[in-house]
Amino acid sequence: MNNDKHIASAFDRDLEAIQALIMKMGGMVEANITAAAQALEDRDVETAAKVRAADKAIDILEEQINEEAARVIALRSPAASDLRTVLTVMKIAGNLERCGDYAKNLAKRTGVLAELTPIDGAGASIRRMARAVEEMLKMALDAYIQRDAELAEQVRQRDLDVDQMYNALFREFLTYMMEDPRNISACMHLHFIAKNIERMGDHATSIAEQVIYLVTGEMPEDARPKGDLTSHTDLGLEAP
Amino acid sequence: MNNDKHIASAFDRDLEAIQALIMKMGGMVEANITAAAQALEDRDVETAAKVRAADKAIDILEEQINEEAARVIALRSPAASDLRTVLTVMKIAGNLERCGDYAKNLAKRTGVLAELTPIDGAGASIRRMARAVEEMLKMALDAYIQRDAELAEQVRQRDLDVDQMYNALFREFLTYMMEDPRNISACMHLHFIAKNIERMGDHATSIAEQVIYLVTGEMPEDARPKGDLTSHTDLGLEAP
Repeated sequence: MNNDKHIASAFDRDLEAIQALIMKMGGMVEANITAAAQALEDRDVETAAKVRAADKAIDILEEQINEEAARVIALRSPAASDLRTVLTVMKIAGNLERCGDYAKNLAKRTGVLAELTPIDGAGASIRRMARAVEEMLKMALDAYIQRDAELAEQVRQRDLDVDQMYNALFREFLTYMMEDPRNISACMHLHFIAKNIERMGDHATSIAEQVIYLVTGEMPEDARPKGDLTSHTDLGLEAP
Repeated sequence: MNNDKHIASAFDRDLEAIQALIMKMGGMVEANITAAAQALEDRDVETAAKVRAADKAIDILEEQINEEAARVIALRSPAASDLRTVLTVMKIAGNLERCGDYAKNLAKRTGVLAELTPIDGAGASIRRMARAVEEMLKMALDAYIQRDAELAEQVRQRDLDVDQMYNALFREFLTYMMEDPRNISACMHLHFIAKNIERMGDHATSIAEQVIYLVTGEMPEDARPKGDLTSHTDLGLEAP
């Protein structure tokens, strides 16, 4: 009953406005991931502090997106498929917020790590992993805006690379810990960071899967391809 | 304009129905946390498998809550304060879903840990911490249903205990790792588990804070009291 032209385009305009907020939020999250990883590598606590401050703005934007979305639902009483689109927007905002939290957490650890035994090459590896995830996020949001299920599928495949990067890093940190107990503390922080970046990848993948659902009406068959199968193998030295 | 008696009570009935789903979801999550921690202590992979299966039902319930909430918003076009209440329901469902995920993750690691060097007393410590968090969740949901800001405040205070439990466990695992490198792998899994339980506590606290906001119209002044300040100290052996 809300299908007449006038109402439909009002809904579309509302949706576009919210999508613009999502893209803005995505840009802020991407920037924060990059800055956090760079700060970690450079042991730059000042930049790390900026990342933590910027996360507040990201959280506020999520609130705003949720309230706008609710307002649109209340105002337009959208039909089932439009309702699903708005709920997807809220989910994507939630995924972005979580990524922002992980970037903030990464920034928090920069100060601690700056005081600990440096681990050779760890900063650069973390930064590479962060860049891969940031690209995944960008692709996932592009796929969303363009309703491009193929691009979304590529994001899912990229997540396998990120999982592999994580597994490799985990093994590397393990050898450092076994070599010298004084490395244990730094390596545990680094391991948490790597795990959190791997989780950002999962959130980018989750955005991609929602795009596939929006476009095709079905969740990807094998949701989701898992590179980090290690938490249910019985090999002692696998990545947790 | 929706303030006449008839519409208001229809909204209330709708809200009550959704709140019943929240309580059901909360019960399932609490049961899964307990079962996962018990399975870990008993090295009981069969129960762990059940936990993982039950998490699917929890996820489906979250979907259902979100869709019901959206339906209510579309149908009743609630005024600002009622709209906030419905958005809060969705947030609480999100917090519960995350707790469920952490319980599932705990269950996943049961199989791995069963094959590794046992760490004395770790299973029992984890179970105690899980029980504390489960109680926090129960209190937070009671506070929500009764709109009891005082009870919600107690949840926030309890979170400090859980953070302390986590910090103590972290130190304990660290000593095991330093003592014998063969303990490293098991301790890293256990550490992740402890961290995930600590995060469940954060989600219970987040529910409590939303209750305080619903009742008082303001977020708690010092949101939130933080027992795990360690990720921004410069002490090398602090918990990440």
